[in-house]
Amino acid sequence: MDKEPVFQKVYEYLDNRIKRGDWKEHEKIPSVRKLGEELGVHRLTVLKAYQRLKEQHKLYVKDKSGYFVHPGASYSFSDMDDPIVTSFIYKSHLSEIHRIPVKYQFSYSLIDPNLLPNHYFSEHMKEVFDLNPKVLSTYSTIQGDNDVREALAQYFNKKYQFHLAADDLLITSGSQQAIDILSRIFIQRGDVVLMERPTYSAAIDIFRQQGAKIVTIDIHPYGYDLNQVEAFMKNYKPRIFYMNPTFHNPTGYTVPTNQRKELVDLAEKYKCFLLEDDPFNDIYFHDLPPKPLFSYDTSGYVLYIRSFSKYIAPGLRIAVLCTRPSIMKHVITVKSLTDNGTPLLNQKMFLHYFSSARLQQHIEKLRIALHIRKEIMEEELATTNWNWISPNGGLNLWIQLPDTLEMETLLATSLDHSISFVPGSICDPTKDTKSWIRLSYSYIKEQMIREGIQKLLVLSNQIENR
Amino acid sequence: MDKEPVFQKVYEYLDNRIKRGDWKEHEKIPSVRKLGEELGVHRLTVLKAYQRLKEQHKLYVKDKSGYFVHPGASYSFSDMDDPIVTSFIYKSHLSEIHRIPVKYQFSYSLIDPNLLPNHYFSEHMKEVFDLNPKVLSTYSTIQGDNDVREALAQYFNKKYQFHLAADDLLITSGSQQAIDILSRIFIQRGDVVLMERPTYSAAIDIFRQQGAKIVTIDIHPYGYDLNQVEAFMKNYKPRIFYMNPTFHNPTGYTVPTNQRKELVDLAEKYKCFLLEDDPFNDIYFHDLPPKPLFSYDTSGYVLYIRSFSKYIAPGLRIAVLCTRPSIMKHVITVKSLTDNGTPLLNQKMFLHYFSSARLQQHIEKLRIALHIRKEIMEEELATTNWNWISPNGGLNLWIQLPDTLEMETLLATSLDHSISFVPGSICDPTKDTKSWIRLSYSYIKEQMIREGIQKLLVLSNQIENR
Repeated sequence: MDKEPVFQKVYEYLDNRIKRGDWKEHEKIPSVRKLGEELGVHRLTVLKAYQRLKEQHKLYVKDKSGYFVHPGASYSFSDMDDPIVTSFIYKSHLSEIHRIPVKYQFSYSLIDPNLLPNHYFSEHMKEVFDLNPKVLSTYSTIQGDNDVREALAQYFNKKYQFHLAADDLLITSGSQQAIDILSRIFIQRGDVVLMERPTYSAAIDIFRQQGAKIVTIDIHPYGYDLNQVEAFMKNYKPRIFYMNPTFHNPTGYTVPTNQRKELVDLAEKYKCFLLEDDPFNDIYFHDLPPKPLFSYDTSGYVLYIRSFSKYIAPGLRIAVLCTRPSIMKHVITVKSLTDNGTPLLNQKMFLHYFSSARLQQHIEKLRIALHIRKEIMEEELATTNWNWISPNGGLNLWIQLPDTLEMETLLATSLDHSISFVPGSICDPTKDTKSWIRLSYSYIKEQMIREGIQKLLVLSNQIENR
Repeated sequence: MDKEPVFQKVYEYLDNRIKRGDWKEHEKIPSVRKLGEELGVHRLTVLKAYQRLKEQHKLYVKDKSGYFVHPGASYSFSDMDDPIVTSFIYKSHLSEIHRIPVKYQFSYSLIDPNLLPNHYFSEHMKEVFDLNPKVLSTYSTIQGDNDVREALAQYFNKKYQFHLAADDLLITSGSQQAIDILSRIFIQRGDVVLMERPTYSAAIDIFRQQGAKIVTIDIHPYGYDLNQVEAFMKNYKPRIFYMNPTFHNPTGYTVPTNQRKELVDLAEKYKCFLLEDDPFNDIYFHDLPPKPLFSYDTSGYVLYIRSFSKYIAPGLRIAVLCTRPSIMKHVITVKSLTDNGTPLLNQKMFLHYFSSARLQQHIEKLRIALHIRKEIMEEELATTNWNWISPNGGLNLWIQLPDTLEMETLLATSLDHSISFVPGSICDPTKDTKSWIRLSYSYIKEQMIREGIQKLLVLSNQIENR
């Protein structure tokens, strides 16, 4: 669990103010007593922070008259690297790896553009404009276009026996925005969030940015240790359990039905909201996955996020958030502050495809294509002593490397040879998952998967035999 | 200025935890001493909060053994109205007025869809797809499409003598998102933000949500009182001065060139960033407005936000944020967490129009159409004893009602008669501006403006003669 003692906060607060030049060189800063009162912390804590800053030559003492700012302690704007931003900003590590252009792209958990219905949109765009002549000159409502919400509510109700009205849905610009909105509603600095270990790295960044303390629950091929979940809910009183229970990212594991029901009961008992992020539900290779936790929820403790555009046209950025009215009103408020509503054009284009018969045909084909790619990747990896559980859906293999192969070395070497993958540590809030990697089979063609994995294995052999 | 003593924070924190049921009925809560240590606040402060909660029958004392949760103090989920959200969430008041459907729409500071080039987009969409066949199957970079940023940088450099490279720009989904991103970077709870009074109400909501203390500077037809600006920068050490200096919303006032230069100097002197929101620059009726403050900035203390899609296709939601590299890297991080990048389709469509010769013709026509609408509104209002300064640009009249006419009554009566406008209090962080209203002349047709204002004046006469 994150720890941040009061001293650290006071120290950082002062350090920040000195850096950004709130006081001039040789200016006297407030007395220990005054600042203690202002911040509502004990004087000794303030004194300790002042002393630390003195040791670092940022403050100096003039015999008994107090603490003064040391020349050079504040940054001039030109060499200022970081001081003007809040300490709540964390880097999005995943996006850094994604920014490196490579030939063998195993780090994108995205669908190969060649598998997407690009043609359809270019052909049918005109229809969208004819049906909605002012689609570009008007804003969507903040909650999202009513036709889109109706269509999605019907789809959910039919497929999963949800009980949704259109007003229980809000359209977001991608599922990440939905997580971000919920984090801004539920999380205050210091609140606890439960997360799976490993988990979706962008979600880690979002909750941390909001100041959450993160407590992790291991996810296993059979689900969670529910005793641990209960103990953590009881002890840590988390506000949210962020989960990805169906073809989980990065592992591909699926939480079974009996656990889903129990989790909903635990959520209600301990008043911990379950944020069910469900991007891969449609990408199953054998049986249909269990129904979402949301379908077992009668008391409103499950918040359901579903990305749709991912499998159709990721460029549209359309996801949906389902929740009860008491939460929805806050979601609408934050969405209004964030961007005042997702663009109407994108929603109407999505609807045009979503309502067409092609959607089901497309997703069926997509499932087959991804299944084949997964099998090719597994075939190439079969000769290794690497460990993974073959997933029944999703876009990734979650692989444990042998002790003899250091992940960091493999990553650096791979990037040099134009191969990228996601290091497991990025998916772990505790950063402990050092011998695991995520290989996505969804983004590049069959033949490229073969080539890329073969090259990766040559590199790994070289590393092991050094 | 907002005040929130430590006691209030501790009290709200506890009240919140009790409401949301972190402790059960009759459960003992932590001792005064323990909680004081945990929160890093003085024991007396905690005790005071416990006593207040006891007075409110949320806690009770059992002889010397401590404080216990009173039955009924926590909300059950069903009757819970607000307790599960953070106290940082404020309602967006403007969007509430906008949600009321009316015939005479004077509250939308938006361009009438009939004045926008809807046809163009429906005709030229196919070209966008032909030029960018995979526009829907790929994501934009987080910072925004490079071609779009190049085109905008060139435009700014030529028109205003900015010195921008494409990397100094980030594309956002509307200007509100740009403000939100900057507030998340610059503002920690308790930081001071300077705002004009009156100002753009959504910006008030955004800064408040981030926990800012807001200090206001009156904006006058001739600009600000710069002595006051300097005194406030010196005393309050604000992180940001949010301003809308050109055809200001809601007043229409423009800050003159000499003040712009001085403001940039003050910003550097007091290390206060100027957030220059410039949505109306192109909507002038006579002379070109002064150059943006950003063009006088050599030290990086001006952050420039410009919305473009507003006058072309508001449904696209395209705005741009200009800043220096040291800030830009943080902007990119927060944008990546927020929504991972503005949809590529919307950017490419915008670019298609922005690069065409039609843009300038369109904006020229738009200026004339809006000028005419403004004059019609003023003509109808000429018979009243209402006060306003005729604006040289923008979309609104900012009007002071006579003492004999109560604004709240006028608003309620108007809404009953399908006329809406924005009450001045919404635009004022201090809520003091009670006798002012904003009437937008941009959204409805000439004849409707006449009719609507005539009806409004009949209603106001009735109210005054009651």
